Parts: sequence; structure tokens; C-alpha cells
Amino acid sequence: MNKILASIITIGDELLIGQVVDTNSAWMAQELNKNGIWVGHRVAVGDVWNDIWNALDQESQRSSIILITGGLGPTADDITKALLCQYFGGKMIVDEGALRNIKKIFERLQRPMIERNLQQAEVPDNCKVIPNKRGTAPGMWFEKEGRIFVSMPGVPHEMKGMMTDDVLPSLHSKFSLPAITHRTLLTAGIGESFLADHINAFETALPPHIKLAYLPNYGMVRLRLTASGPDKATLESELDGQFARLKTLVTEWMVIDTDLSIQEALGKLLKEKGLTLSTAESCTGGYIAHLITSISGSSNYFKGSVVSYDNGIKQRLLKVDAGTLEKTGAVSEETVREMVKGALQLLDTDCTIAVSGIMGPGGGSEKKPVGTVWVAVGNHQKIVAQQFFFRFDRQRNIELTATNALNLLRKFILSEY
Amino acid sequence: MNKILASIITIGDELLIGQVVDTNSAWMAQELNKNGIWVGHRVAVGDVWNDIWNALDQESQRSSIILITGGLGPTADDITKALLCQYFGGKMIVDEGALRNIKKIFERLQRPMIERNLQQAEVPDNCKVIPNKRGTAPGMWFEKEGRIFVSMPGVPHEMKGMMTDDVLPSLHSKFSLPAITHRTLLTAGIGESFLADHINAFETALPPHIKLAYLPNYGMVRLRLTASGPDKATLESELDGQFARLKTLVTEWMVIDTDLSIQEALGKLLKEKGLTLSTAESCTGGYIAHLITSISGSSNYFKGSVVSYDNGIKQRLLKVDAGTLEKTGAVSEETVREMVKGALQLLDTDCTIAVSGIMGPGGGSEKKPVGTVWVAVGNHQKIVAQQFFFRFDRQRNIELTATNALNLLRKFILSEY
Repeated sequence: MNKILASIITIGDELLIGQVVDTNSAWMAQELNKNGIWVGHRVAVGDVWNDIWNALDQESQRSSIILITGGLGPTADDITKALLCQYFGGKMIVDEGALRNIKKIFERLQRPMIERNLQQAEVPDNCKVIPNKRGTAPGMWFEKEGRIFVSMPGVPHEMKGMMTDDVLPSLHSKFSLPAITHRTLLTAGIGESFLADHINAFETALPPHIKLAYLPNYGMVRLRLTASGPDKATLESELDGQFARLKTLVTEWMVIDTDLSIQEALGKLLKEKGLTLSTAESCTGGYIAHLITSISGSSNYFKGSVVSYDNGIKQRLLKVDAGTLEKTGAVSEETVREMVKGALQLLDTDCTIAVSGIMGPGGGSEKKPVGTVWVAVGNHQKIVAQQFFFRFDRQRNIELTATNALNLLRKFILSEY
Repeated sequence: MNKILASIITIGDELLIGQVVDTNSAWMAQELNKNGIWVGHRVAVGDVWNDIWNALDQESQRSSIILITGGLGPTADDITKALLCQYFGGKMIVDEGALRNIKKIFERLQRPMIERNLQQAEVPDNCKVIPNKRGTAPGMWFEKEGRIFVSMPGVPHEMKGMMTDDVLPSLHSKFSLPAITHRTLLTAGIGESFLADHINAFETALPPHIKLAYLPNYGMVRLRLTASGPDKATLESELDGQFARLKTLVTEWMVIDTDLSIQEALGKLLKEKGLTLSTAESCTGGYIAHLITSISGSSNYFKGSVVSYDNGIKQRLLKVDAGTLEKTGAVSEETVREMVKGALQLLDTDCTIAVSGIMGPGGGSEKKPVGTVWVAVGNHQKIVAQQFFFRFDRQRNIELTATNALNLLRKFILSEY
């Protein structure tokens, strides 16, 4: 079976002046990879006619599939659609479906449409139109000399929707892709290089059609086994065996053995146990509650939070003792333990998470440097607290505090219920 | 003055399987841009000999400066150094400075060194070595046929250190770079295409050395004017004039005339007016508080939040009337107005933001579809409420609710204080 190669072309000056970090390419590569398509080359060009044209020429010499994002906006610098029309020798026509979609969006927004918006419904007559359920710019699918070219908007959720709903299924029906199957588990509390060292023998003994990927994120490392081959059933049973072996090697650090985030894993556990949750957040400023509520259906177990950025709120609402704050400070084991008690009472839930720390860049001291964090989790019977030290920038310290706090509660529930 | 063009080549399989989001390129492009160097092309290739070789050939036809990151690690798949040695016709020698640096790092870590680590001190004899103060792999500077090639590690802080300490200053001394200057403003409440239409005459009248960029994000559009030319002072005064003109055109929608986010703009305003802030969040689940507290120093004006995901918490803590919830529902003008009153009282701040909505995918109804949001902002004297309709996925609906709520408060403060 031949390896199917894809190239990704991202178009837009915003990528070349560094205004936007390209997160689309990584997502696309992951999805393609899961489907047995290998991205061999990625290129970013500006809104420049010759550069886009040359990129199309060059990538079509390399790959069977060329995925293009960006350059489809309604403004003058977006030249991609006109270029594609000329590149594939078509002429522009109005696509009735795209037009209806645009009109519907503007009706719902109760905004008047202008000529520029209507022009977004125009497409080359030699492409298959990919409907955009999430925005105004339609996607376009071209075929030329055995190559497939797909143009999609650069807006991440529009591109992702098109890929999932249309592009990936269509690629599946076009190519004889190998069967691909994955097993994923999430670890916490061990760094990538230590993990790699720990499972080195396992990794090197893997047969060539099974690959192990390390996917680090927010201080946790996801491990993904991917097998590819002609027969799905054979692969599944083979991968089950390898995955079981891997799990025994990482038991100590394993959070969950499916492809879920820590907030999803915790939510699943809370639902299974029929428990309700609240948070009392100082340094994370609501970020833990945000992660929990980013999961649809979280209202089944999550009741609410108190963000007590100010010590007055810690005292009045969470009943943290003024003496505790004075004696041990807001970033201390005593304070987060009292925050847990106060939040359980005030928000009336079965369990809660409390955090207090110094996220930086300001606020650190000799005794409590930036990155010092206290986390407590507990229920009406028991509270567990742990200190952490992070050494990154403010945003990353907040993220690490949040994921570690969620994981501490997960471990607490597993041991107590 | 000629435009100095640069290309960025990123090397590593991890970029092509989507394991890593490439944040290096955006940072490098920004820094180069600030220094008058234009990135015309970016390309990502795997750890594959021919692909790297071809990328060097192709980019050197395009650009005078070729910056390469990645592929310099100690593991077997990192072939970049050997390839560069052959590409530029050199032979490998041990660099004494790099060797001392590696030994020092291992001493500090108190770890034994292996052969692999020592090999990191080897470099081609025809490059200028760029010291790595933050890691083991040295950088390499090659010159060939009037082109400059710089190879750096892919680890972000190592690459950034080399760029700042060595590469940018060296490029400045090599090339006669133009002066570059920017002006940025943020707009809200107007779509990209309407804005483009509205300022079309202004944009087309701009001289060729001044460019206007539209940078949409979370329902807001940032406008950036960039001027380049031989003399900095002339550019500054010219750009001031154009920027003043642009500001008068977009007054109605302008949030702030500097390069700040909405939460930074609001924070600045609150500090200026000496006001304190709290939030009462239902559908955003703490995300507004998170945005506010992502700004260092926000504790000067932000006191805290109640995330009232559960209606019981809306009633008990925020004193929302049970009758109101029953009659108009949690997503209603009446409810968010009562949430404002309750939060002002409970959290004891000068002003507050309250939101309630349906973020999806579940929870919508005929009368209140997914994306329906009520926002209220106010102080002890006055409350203003506004309904919004968003039509995206859960995450984006949350983001749009948050940024629009922050902007509603900003406008309220400007009109009331």
C-alpha cells in the first residue's frame, strides 16, 4: 500500500508578520495522520499572487493532496479564490447554496449585506463547493492530474468543521487509505524525557507499523499508539496487546486510558459517582471553572465558584480566618484548606477545589517565589493539600496550576469513593 | 532601498504530525519585521535528508536570509548538522567553546554525559558558531553566494536567546535595513468586511510604503498601519498623520488606539478611574474573570467573581428572585440585572459584569436558541443590559460573550464616569 502524502499551504500576510500563530496546521496534521495520510511538507505564503501560484505548483509535485487554508476573506488582500479560479482554468459563478447561507447568516445577525459579502458566494465553476456551516466563505475542492486541492477558510472552527464533515470523509472515498487505529492514554506528574527513558525498551521493541507519539500539554503527557496496516481487525487486536503492556508500564502516572482531557476525565468520574463540584480560586482567577465548564453537560455536576482574588472575599465569603491570612499568608496550606471548607459550605457541593499561588511576573518574594502554589481538594470528611512550584510565565503557570488541581481532585475521588 | 527578504525553515517530524504547534515562526517573523526584514516564505519539513536539502536550495533562491530551526537534538533522527556540513562543503570539528558549555551544563545537572552529548560540540569548520547560553546545541552561521543561513535549536527559549543576543544584531551589521514603524488600534462591534468598506477610500489612498492590516480576533478587529522607509523620524510623523485620519474614521467602534487586548484596555481604564470590578458569570463559567486576571497587576482593580452555574447559587448568593427565574428564565434581561445588583452587594465593588446565556451544543430551545446571551453591566446607580446572538461552537460562543461583555462595561464606564 502506497503512503498517501499531503501538503498544507497556509495563506495570509498575518502568518508572515507573526501576528497569528498557526494552530490550524498542527490540528490538520493530527487529523490527517489519524486517517492514514502523512503530511510531508507545510508552507506558509503571503497574499502574493506569484507566491501562492508557485506553492501550488511545487506542492502538487510533492503530494497527492494539497490542503489550503486562508486568503478567502471578503477584503481586497484576499486573492486566493480568484487565483484558484485562474489556476484551474475556471470562471466565476454564483453558488446558490453559498448565497443562501450568507443571506441566512446576515438575516440572523440583522445586519445589512454589502457587495463584498455577496461576492463570497462566488466560486470557480470547476470546483465542488464545500458548504460552510459556520461562516460565509465556502470551501472549494478541485481535482487536477490526479491531485486533489482543497481550499478552506483560515478561521479555525470553520476549517475544522469542513475537514470533519466533508474533507476527511471525501478523502476516504477517493483514496485507498490504510486502516489506522489508535490507543491513547494521559499521564501526569512525569516529564516527557523521563517518560521516554522509562518506556524506551517498550518503544524500541514496537513493530515498524506501530508508532508511539508523545504529546505533551500543560505539564501532562499524552501517549498515543498508532497502528497502520491493511486489516483493521488484525490491527485492533494487536494494538490492544501493546496498549495493555504500555499501561502496566505507566500505571503510576496514568490519568485515564482514553483520549480525554483532564477536565473530561474528571467530569466523567464525577458523573459516575454522582458527585457535585465547586471551586474556590485565587491565583487561577476562574480558569479552573472555565476548564470544567468548557465541557458541554458540565452543569450536571458543576455548581459554581467563588473567585476570591481579594483577601476580603476570602474572609467574607469563604470564611477564611483573618488570623490565618495574617499568620501564614494567602498562599499557604492553611488558607487553601479553609477555602475548601468555606466553599463546600457556601456553594453546597460534595467536593471542591481551592487554589492560591503567585503566578508572576510580580508578587514573588524570597520565601514564596513566583510559581509557588498551594492546592487543596476535599469533601465534608477530608481535605488533602499539596504544594507545587512552577517556573514559567503567568499564562502557563495558571494552566499548570489548573490541570494539576483537577488531577489532585481526580486522585482524591478515586481514593475516597 | 531594497526589501530584505527572509525565509524560515523549521525542521522536525513533530511539526508534520501535529505534535507541536509552531510558535517559533510567529515570534521570529515579528522580530524580523520590527527590524525591517520581511518574511516572504515559511516552510516546515521533516527530518528527511532530501527535503531539508531541497528547502535550502529553494529558499536561497527566494531570500537573502534563511533562518533554520530544529533538527539539532542529540538523537538519531536529528540530521540537520551533518547535512549543513555537507551542503556548505565543510568538515566536522570540535568547537571548544561549545564543549565547555555542554560540560558545564551536565556538571550543573549532576548527570553523566554520554557520547551523544559530546557530539553536540561538533560543528562544521566553515560556520561561525553562535553560543547557546540556554542549552547544549550551538547555533551555526553560514554565508554562501551572498546569502546568510543561520541554524538554531527548535527549543523556543534557546532560539529566542540566540536571535536576540546574536542573530538580529549581526543581521543589522550585515544589511542596510529600512526603518519600520507601526500604529495599532482595536475596534469592536463592526465586522471585518464592513470596516473594510467603510475605510476603503482611506486604504486605497495610502502611499505604497504604508500598509494597512486587518487582524480579526474574537469578534473584534485590530487595524495596524505599518510604514517602512529610510528615515525613522520622517516615518513616525507621516504615520502619526495617517493614524489620526484613520482614528477619525473609526471613532464609533474604536476600543483603544494602542496595541492592547480588550481586557488590557478595560484594566487601564479602571485603574485610571480608580474603580473596582467583579463579575457574576453563568454561561461563561469564569472565563471573563480568567481574561481579566490574565493581566498581571489586575489585583489592583479586580476583586473577585461568583460563577453561578447553578440557579440555586444565583438565588442564594446573588439574590436573584426565584420568581424572576421562574417567570423569565435564567437567560433573560431581568435575571442578569438582578445578578449585577447581587454581585455589587456581595463582592463589594464599584462596578460589575453579569452574563447568562446558552453556549451549546445542548440547552437551546425554539424561543432561546443556542447562542442567545444576556449581558448586564453597571454600578450602584445604573445598570445597562444588552442581548447578543452568537452562532458558533461552545468555546467560541464563550469567548465572544466574554469579549463583548468586557466591551459593554468599557463603554458604560466611558459614558458614566
